[in-house]
Amino acid sequence: MGSDWIEQFADAPDVLKTQPDQKTVVRAGDVAIGGREFVTMAGPCSVETERQLMETAGFVARAGARMLRGGAFKPRTSPYAFQGLGLDGLKLLAKARAATGLAIVTEVMTAADAPMVAEYADILQIGSRSMENYALLEAAARTGRPILLKRGMVASVADLMRSAQCVISYGNPNVILCERGIRTFETATRNTFDVAAIVVLKEIARLPVIADPSHAAGRRELVPALARSAVAAGADGQVVEVHPHPDEAWSDGEQSLTFAAFEAMMTDLAPWCELRAQRGCALETVA
Amino acid sequence: MGSDWIEQFADAPDVLKTQPDQKTVVRAGDVAIGGREFVTMAGPCSVETERQLMETAGFVARAGARMLRGGAFKPRTSPYAFQGLGLDGLKLLAKARAATGLAIVTEVMTAADAPMVAEYADILQIGSRSMENYALLEAAARTGRPILLKRGMVASVADLMRSAQCVISYGNPNVILCERGIRTFETATRNTFDVAAIVVLKEIARLPVIADPSHAAGRRELVPALARSAVAAGADGQVVEVHPHPDEAWSDGEQSLTFAAFEAMMTDLAPWCELRAQRGCALETVA
Amino acid sequence: MGSDWIEQFADAPDVLKTQPDQKTVVRAGDVAIGGREFVTMAGPCSVETERQLMETAGFVARAGARMLRGGAFKPRTSPYAFQGLGLDGLKLLAKARAATGLAIVTEVMTAADAPMVAEYADILQIGSRSMENYALLEAAARTGRPILLKRGMVASVADLMRSAQCVISYGNPNVILCERGIRTFETATRNTFDVAAIVVLKEIARLPVIADPSHAAGRRELVPALARSAVAAGADGQVVEVHPHPDEAWSDGEQSLTFAAFEAMMTDLAPWCELRAQRGCALETVA
Amino acid sequence: MGSDWIEQFADAPDVLKTQPDQKTVVRAGDVAIGGREFVTMAGPCSVETERQLMETAGFVARAGARMLRGGAFKPRTSPYAFQGLGLDGLKLLAKARAATGLAIVTEVMTAADAPMVAEYADILQIGSRSMENYALLEAAARTGRPILLKRGMVASVADLMRSAQCVISYGNPNVILCERGIRTFETATRNTFDVAAIVVLKEIARLPVIADPSHAAGRRELVPALARSAVAAGADGQVVEVHPHPDEAWSDGEQSLTFAAFEAMMTDLAPWCELRAQRGCALETVA
Repeated sequence: MGSDWIEQFADAPDVLKTQPDQKTVVRAGDVAIGGREFVTMAGPCSVETERQLMETAGFVARAGARMLRGGAFKPRTSPYAFQGLGLDGLKLLAKARAATGLAIVTEVMTAADAPMVAEYADILQIGSRSMENYALLEAAARTGRPILLKRGMVASVADLMRSAQCVISYGNPNVILCERGIRTFETATRNTFDVAAIVVLKEIARLPVIADPSHAAGRRELVPALARSAVAAGADGQVVEVHPHPDEAWSDGEQSLTFAAFEAMMTDLAPWCELRAQRGCALETVA
Repeated sequence: MGSDWIEQFADAPDVLKTQPDQKTVVRAGDVAIGGREFVTMAGPCSVETERQLMETAGFVARAGARMLRGGAFKPRTSPYAFQGLGLDGLKLLAKARAATGLAIVTEVMTAADAPMVAEYADILQIGSRSMENYALLEAAARTGRPILLKRGMVASVADLMRSAQCVISYGNPNVILCERGIRTFETATRNTFDVAAIVVLKEIARLPVIADPSHAAGRRELVPALARSAVAAGADGQVVEVHPHPDEAWSDGEQSLTFAAFEAMMTDLAPWCELRAQRGCALETVA
Repeated sequence: MGSDWIEQFADAPDVLKTQPDQKTVVRAGDVAIGGREFVTMAGPCSVETERQLMETAGFVARAGARMLRGGAFKPRTSPYAFQGLGLDGLKLLAKARAATGLAIVTEVMTAADAPMVAEYADILQIGSRSMENYALLEAAARTGRPILLKRGMVASVADLMRSAQCVISYGNPNVILCERGIRTFETATRNTFDVAAIVVLKEIARLPVIADPSHAAGRRELVPALARSAVAAGADGQVVEVHPHPDEAWSDGEQSLTFAAFEAMMTDLAPWCELRAQRGCALETVA
Repeated sequence: MGSDWIEQFADAPDVLKTQPDQKTVVRAGDVAIGGREFVTMAGPCSVETERQLMETAGFVARAGARMLRGGAFKPRTSPYAFQGLGLDGLKLLAKARAATGLAIVTEVMTAADAPMVAEYADILQIGSRSMENYALLEAAARTGRPILLKRGMVASVADLMRSAQCVISYGNPNVILCERGIRTFETATRNTFDVAAIVVLKEIARLPVIADPSHAAGRRELVPALARSAVAAGADGQVVEVHPHPDEAWSDGEQSLTFAAFEAMMTDLAPWCELRAQRGCALETVA
């Protein structure tokens, strides 16, 4: 923890701040990520049906979400596994955007799909398993769309910054970093939510940082308090899983919030977000 | 993460809540830990000199701390290593209490020392390295003083609860749990602050839970934001290192706050603590 | 560790043995992996120049290696980074095969490259970072070439088996599993070589298992003893980095063996391999 | 992994070799640990009854063990928990020594017990949970008995060496280091056996290094292959759990070998140990 602490991040020169107040605000539709607002992206793990998506989109929009999340492409672990609705899923996302005004964030899984996903999505998500898939990072970067880069399960903060540097070096500076929990020995939660990573990144990196309390927790009861801790740590937003009927969700049901729980969380979060906005959450360097 | 999730904590029946609103409030002097107030315990890593301790105690008291921390016994890793001021340190702590009204928390390192430390301290701290030193847990428990039990560097939440159960089973129900960061692959921080452990413990355990952002971070710049995240997660208090001249501290200087930084942190924290108190931070179980 | 231990591997039914002596022997050129012979695959991290590759191939062949390893495609972390020699590298590998008779194993990094790599290589390697890149697993599997599947840095044994299951489910049963160290808190070695993973896999999986002592150790001094431990644990082979001038290597020089060290290791290993072959290293189930 | 690698061990100057062939041979009874012989210490987790201990001692002696292990003091996690037979257990161990000639190793859990344990035992074991219990290290060191120091579940190699340094600095150079698995995300084994730690320690430390394959594995089927890997890595011995009826053991039954399995393991190990002795397992530094 010596004065050479910053050196571990030296491989990401275009991610590091060169002056204390430097920051990138990423825009998607009418949403600005990295500014005064704490931005909530919400929606189902997977796009399953038109009805499921439209209901969810409508509800989360009314409850205060600014973006809609939902997976059209899922990791296809076998020829028989559900692989997402693909292009049909993207079209449903676009339809939900038209109906609600929510901007869309969705994952791209292969370099070949990047142009197609970019046609429909406002932000391309790179999943945890893909954080070091450099061919995918290049293809996603070259679409020109903002990139939501999720930290790998076992990636250090320096590793995450290195992947962000990779995207930027392909000419795309609009990268949002996302802390979603790391793998440790702890089994009380699905992953260990590294809230200090948010603090470190807000201190040293010029990019917006958001949290994914759903994947970090793995249990919906824990999500609201993790979201509050992310707000307090200075995060610029969150991405959270919501489903009309979590127990029937095709994936990640245990960590998905019901509509009622999502609404309660948004109400609960409001004054904390207000406090964050009033005071600024830039980490004050202390002497 | 199934419905059998709670079973991993079954070895600690007297720590688990048997009803949702059950909670233990631990009292030390005029301080109540586990109630409406977010309690700050502050002071140097080690008691070094009378002047150092009295100055620090006076300052942190004025800035809003409710308890004074400071080590009189240090891990003695060799015959030549500084082992703390011992009994003289305890007497200085008592003197600082007389001067400031702050209650005292200090570590006990061996079973043999427990009665003596209990004579001077309001709360006995069991350090991370001692969390599974059962002879020490027994001796400390039997003094009747409240116990501040720090999570081991690699202890799971279930392990921590098991050690708390051990203290309770020796007839001492006044246990405060402390999250102080766990050991992971991450090197950006000294430890990985497991804020979700606070959330889980507040959900399932009847005991107060506090945070140690100093040891979690390992760098003073990160401490205030980690403290905020602990408040938001629902912690009942914090223990934080403060030193008049951190760069001259005999131990843990890099993570100790200066007086000015401590005061700034307390001012910064106030509205967050207010929000916590207003709304209650008991984790709402969501349907 | 209960009688339900095996259940954690249930997602990989075609990897699990259905009878104790079931095993897959994977053939590449005239080499059989998974049989009596402990197979050494050796060569440079990256194919750099014709001279470097041909010299290395000739030397390792004479010293007892049965396959040549070498990267033609490297993770391209920026537009400016060395990305390997690509097709030219593949052609050099083929030339080295023609000169020495060594079969070739080389990494494929993107789904699009899989057919081309399969034209030149005898075995396609899936790197640690790609272990859960399912599109790549599918494309590699469909080439029909045997797959060397490296364990991810933070993948559990069950995760590794799940990825192997994915390859098999695309019609390709010829998968070799490779333990190469996992990420832990330990810093004395680059990764933590999980020798017990080899033991577990030999016990429960029908696939050959090899070790990568170079990446596990991160320091060449440690490689020979790790190789011995892999032999003793029952591994079917190893993949090891060798370079004519490690200090001038374009990548991974610190963990690459010199020619002399490689030769010494092979001599040292011979009686251990003999012992392994005599006694069989199938794990005896004990009552 | 740079040339400054060795610096991480600088806090343990009396553990580091100052010349390549420097080594400490620790003697207990007629056994020499750290020399040509691979020394097996075997016995039950806990001393339970006279019959259990005497039968086990007799059997393991005939099968080739050189020392008897068995716990007389167990971690007493509550007033109601089995805490070991205490002094009676020590007396049974002494009786078993008289009957078999096996030297005795047993754990000491508190500083106060150290003199009593030293009266009966040939080697005092410091358990994983106590590795940083400095008061205990001092008391154990001062008895003059050799110390078997087990690595903490989350202790780095450097941490282990630091604790050994502590023992040595109290005037006791007879320390045996023991690798017993570390805590990681992996669940296929109880702990992750860090065989490379043995390799590193044999390379840089002057002290004998042994393995505990029982605690590392957590499952008896895996123990023999882990023992082989330890021999091959250059370990000086092992400590292994054996019980006449593992399924009825009061503790650690799942990882305890039956008599038949222990005998089979010793037979299996013999030629590997012979090879180790013939060739020397000192790690050859490679150029």
